[in-house]
Amino acid sequence: MSERLGFIGLGSMGRPMAANLLKAGYLLSVYNRDVKKTEPLVLAGAVRADRPRDAAKVGGIVITMVANDEALEAVTLGYDGLLASLDAGGIHLSMSTVSPSLSQKLTELHAAHHSTYISAPVFGRPEAAAASQLWIAVAGEAAAKKRVYAILEVLGQGIYDFGHEPYKANIVKISGNFLIASAMESLGEVFAIAEKNGIQRRSVIDMFSQTLFSSPIYKNYGTKIAERSFDEVGFMLKLGLKDVDLLLDQAKQSQVPVPFASHLHNRMLGEIANGNGERDWMELTRGIDRDAGLGK
Amino acid sequence: MSERLGFIGLGSMGRPMAANLLKAGYLLSVYNRDVKKTEPLVLAGAVRADRPRDAAKVGGIVITMVANDEALEAVTLGYDGLLASLDAGGIHLSMSTVSPSLSQKLTELHAAHHSTYISAPVFGRPEAAAASQLWIAVAGEAAAKKRVYAILEVLGQGIYDFGHEPYKANIVKISGNFLIASAMESLGEVFAIAEKNGIQRRSVIDMFSQTLFSSPIYKNYGTKIAERSFDEVGFMLKLGLKDVDLLLDQAKQSQVPVPFASHLHNRMLGEIANGNGERDWMELTRGIDRDAGLGK
Amino acid sequence: MSERLGFIGLGSMGRPMAANLLKAGYLLSVYNRDVKKTEPLVLAGAVRADRPRDAAKVGGIVITMVANDEALEAVTLGYDGLLASLDAGGIHLSMSTVSPSLSQKLTELHAAHHSTYISAPVFGRPEAAAASQLWIAVAGEAAAKKRVYAILEVLGQGIYDFGHEPYKANIVKISGNFLIASAMESLGEVFAIAEKNGIQRRSVIDMFSQTLFSSPIYKNYGTKIAERSFDEVGFMLKLGLKDVDLLLDQAKQSQVPVPFASHLHNRMLGEIANGNGERDWMELTRGIDRDAGLGK
Amino acid sequence: MSERLGFIGLGSMGRPMAANLLKAGYLLSVYNRDVKKTEPLVLAGAVRADRPRDAAKVGGIVITMVANDEALEAVTLGYDGLLASLDAGGIHLSMSTVSPSLSQKLTELHAAHHSTYISAPVFGRPEAAAASQLWIAVAGEAAAKKRVYAILEVLGQGIYDFGHEPYKANIVKISGNFLIASAMESLGEVFAIAEKNGIQRRSVIDMFSQTLFSSPIYKNYGTKIAERSFDEVGFMLKLGLKDVDLLLDQAKQSQVPVPFASHLHNRMLGEIANGNGERDWMELTRGIDRDAGLGK
Repeated sequence: MSERLGFIGLGSMGRPMAANLLKAGYLLSVYNRDVKKTEPLVLAGAVRADRPRDAAKVGGIVITMVANDEALEAVTLGYDGLLASLDAGGIHLSMSTVSPSLSQKLTELHAAHHSTYISAPVFGRPEAAAASQLWIAVAGEAAAKKRVYAILEVLGQGIYDFGHEPYKANIVKISGNFLIASAMESLGEVFAIAEKNGIQRRSVIDMFSQTLFSSPIYKNYGTKIAERSFDEVGFMLKLGLKDVDLLLDQAKQSQVPVPFASHLHNRMLGEIANGNGERDWMELTRGIDRDAGLGK
Repeated sequence: MSERLGFIGLGSMGRPMAANLLKAGYLLSVYNRDVKKTEPLVLAGAVRADRPRDAAKVGGIVITMVANDEALEAVTLGYDGLLASLDAGGIHLSMSTVSPSLSQKLTELHAAHHSTYISAPVFGRPEAAAASQLWIAVAGEAAAKKRVYAILEVLGQGIYDFGHEPYKANIVKISGNFLIASAMESLGEVFAIAEKNGIQRRSVIDMFSQTLFSSPIYKNYGTKIAERSFDEVGFMLKLGLKDVDLLLDQAKQSQVPVPFASHLHNRMLGEIANGNGERDWMELTRGIDRDAGLGK
Repeated sequence: MSERLGFIGLGSMGRPMAANLLKAGYLLSVYNRDVKKTEPLVLAGAVRADRPRDAAKVGGIVITMVANDEALEAVTLGYDGLLASLDAGGIHLSMSTVSPSLSQKLTELHAAHHSTYISAPVFGRPEAAAASQLWIAVAGEAAAKKRVYAILEVLGQGIYDFGHEPYKANIVKISGNFLIASAMESLGEVFAIAEKNGIQRRSVIDMFSQTLFSSPIYKNYGTKIAERSFDEVGFMLKLGLKDVDLLLDQAKQSQVPVPFASHLHNRMLGEIANGNGERDWMELTRGIDRDAGLGK
Repeated sequence: MSERLGFIGLGSMGRPMAANLLKAGYLLSVYNRDVKKTEPLVLAGAVRADRPRDAAKVGGIVITMVANDEALEAVTLGYDGLLASLDAGGIHLSMSTVSPSLSQKLTELHAAHHSTYISAPVFGRPEAAAASQLWIAVAGEAAAKKRVYAILEVLGQGIYDFGHEPYKANIVKISGNFLIASAMESLGEVFAIAEKNGIQRRSVIDMFSQTLFSSPIYKNYGTKIAERSFDEVGFMLKLGLKDVDLLLDQAKQSQVPVPFASHLHNRMLGEIANGNGERDWMELTRGIDRDAGLGK
């Protein structure tokens, strides 16, 4: 447990994840583009890396948790990137939500450098990250997966293995976000009908989330959407659109028409056009309300 | 418990429900259009009624569990109908999935006859009915609801009250079926992408139904859809379309655009056009496969 | 030409049509629910009928041009209705936009009364009606069609025959309105993109309506939508929804999924929910603008 | 007219266009990746260029008519590309259907080389190209547009100017293709309903294409779709998808939800998944038939 890990990306998810690794006894070299965000972790014992490549060491493990494809490419490739310094025997444990195609590309580049790329994207909002309650989908080369398993156990409450090709875990991740968004749209349509017929939105989700749909997503998202309790921004709508669009890209490459995903793209795009892109993605349901003349 | 109840409609849902009431000690007068289906219940102690009106007695309680609006109108109204014989003080406990507007109409007609109409539609497939594990949404006049409560407790594992206007329970019921169909479509889209990318459909639902979507619908329907295990017909696709169309009607009256519901209408209609109307409604996902060139 | 015709329904379309028949030398008995609208025609030589049945005479021809199915049933059936007085040898020339199923029902009822029902719905806005420039789809029994042909020639610039079953002309009519609404939606989407990219909406329609889409609908509707010139109400949005819903009903009966029609239903319903039901149906494109954050 | 032009891209569109320029008296240097396609033009007097850059000469005009963004980048950029040899004062007259964003990029790159990029995408199938009956949308710097005007007049029957920013002409082009695809889908839905109700598909388009929709697209495409006369491949479905996807990209950048375009994406993708990507794009209507259980 006294192994030194690199950790790159200290946003709302990465920060509590890194903190949990420190608590679990790992030594960390942390990098973040905005250096200020490294401070609480340095106070807690982490070492600050000035460049992504400084967070990785030869043959070591470096974890990345960044916002999107562009950010992951930036911290991985190029002179400052981790790929250069990770070297033979190293592992890049990539936990961000990125495109399957970027995963494929990085898998190949790492292989060419004799290091290993593992995809391990996570489900859960920042509270879940802080509580080590993430759900993790993992895929990649077997020996490397084995080596990072203890790390994943620190971060999550459940680990699901999708085989040895990293990009498959990314497909599972964007599929999950699409399933969440679909549930939100369908609940939003139901709530709008209920409201117009004098039925309490809350009473509807209370029943369904205790019965047919007694799951975290329906309970947590459903209740907040019923109450239009959107002030806390757990996941920005514009990132939700990014993920739905990753699914649409994958569906296109795979030749699978996905009409629900297409609709969600338009729904989210409409909210962004109306100025809500940086609000919580549950606000995609505002479009349903607007179309119904509700919730003004 | 030795009260005599009427029970009308002995299809795949009504039969086990009536049997459970007998087991619980109720006396039953049972009516079914096809008289043969009354036989097992008569053997178990029920009395056969020759007409719907014979199942109801003055001031008594009569339960209806029939296929659709037409059937409910047929057994309720007209010379042979239960409305005529129920009379003052009687209760019509209507558990079928019917339109909110028919509920409103029957509420008024019963009131004019000094009897009371209660809506108590149920969630659950025939196995759940047999196991007294239905979920029940109930709405109607308070005193009448109180009087039928013990009956509902025999039939279900949970009862949710939506106030004193019966049609509201019907809106909740068709909303629930719409939520199920939406979950099926979104899972079907995800499975098609997974399959085309070499990811086991089953492994995807295993993860999601243990984590974000750990609810009966995702687990049961999701697993069957993943495995294309459609042989057992729990609920016919053409009845699924009926329910989505009830939601669309209500949405239209309420001026709520519901694009997911519209899509599901087209999806189901397409399967019916392709000859699958009497197969299980999970087969709506066959349309996704067909569009993707899968599953032939 | 001195034949006396009945004419029922003097709305924005019926009034100029009746006036043109008077000008052409026909004698007219006119009926309208709101009696005031008969006045200009009475001044022009028509006789006022107090009841629908008074507009029809034994063996004669009566034209109906009313708002919807309910209105057509009201003026046709019942004690006051035209069916009773038309009698053997009479022709009901039904020019309203009504459902194919009502056409089928009235075809049968007239046959039972030894009169003949002809469907001849029209395309064109009130200006076209005034200018005898309507396009007419006609269907019905051959001899009766022959007898009304001269009348149709007075009213329209082109007559298209769809055989001997009246309801087929109604299907063609609602299909046409659906095609118009589809063109409006697709133009609205194009204009929104153009506007956001600094391209004049008007310049786009100028090109297309002179080239690929050099037709009346693209030119007239397209130009008005480009300019958001919606003040004149030629056809109310709520009637547009009625017609799209007639198409959806027919598509359902025929087992044809029609996703564009479903979308238009939701688009129009959304505008009605936002208070625009009595504005011109071109305003369905406002929903596109609203989703794009435009046109406020 | 004895000016020497470069002409790059001799596919089904480029070949007749180049031939028409030769006939009009222009001298041509022609380049095509597959050199065999240059032969008929060389026989007709053109000079063969071995590389794209050889088709362009300093200060001259070079026309490109290639399949997609990748091809246009390939012939423009890099060591062999036309950009290098066109040089100061030269004009790149880009007539392909490419993305607005590539147009913006090439506009800037040409400006940096003191040459000028003009977008002039065309509407029309190969027959129209052969007959000099194309419709052309042009945009770019004024003096350069003036210099190429005579060329455009040789190729087309109508030229529409969209200002000085080249990418705007590309937006108009992809908008036009989207309008065509929308018209095809809406006609396909109408024809399916007609067919199921015993109405001749052909009689429906005959009426509409002579009346409300008396334009080339409705007449030509409409008639072929009515008759399912798809054997001649004028424009491949996979290219149709490419263009709808360019529109979707632009709509996303512009924050405009475009549900019809999203639907067409899924419709075309479904046909490609079913093996029809290289057939004519009118076959997108096969998906409608398949959903309706028709046309097997």
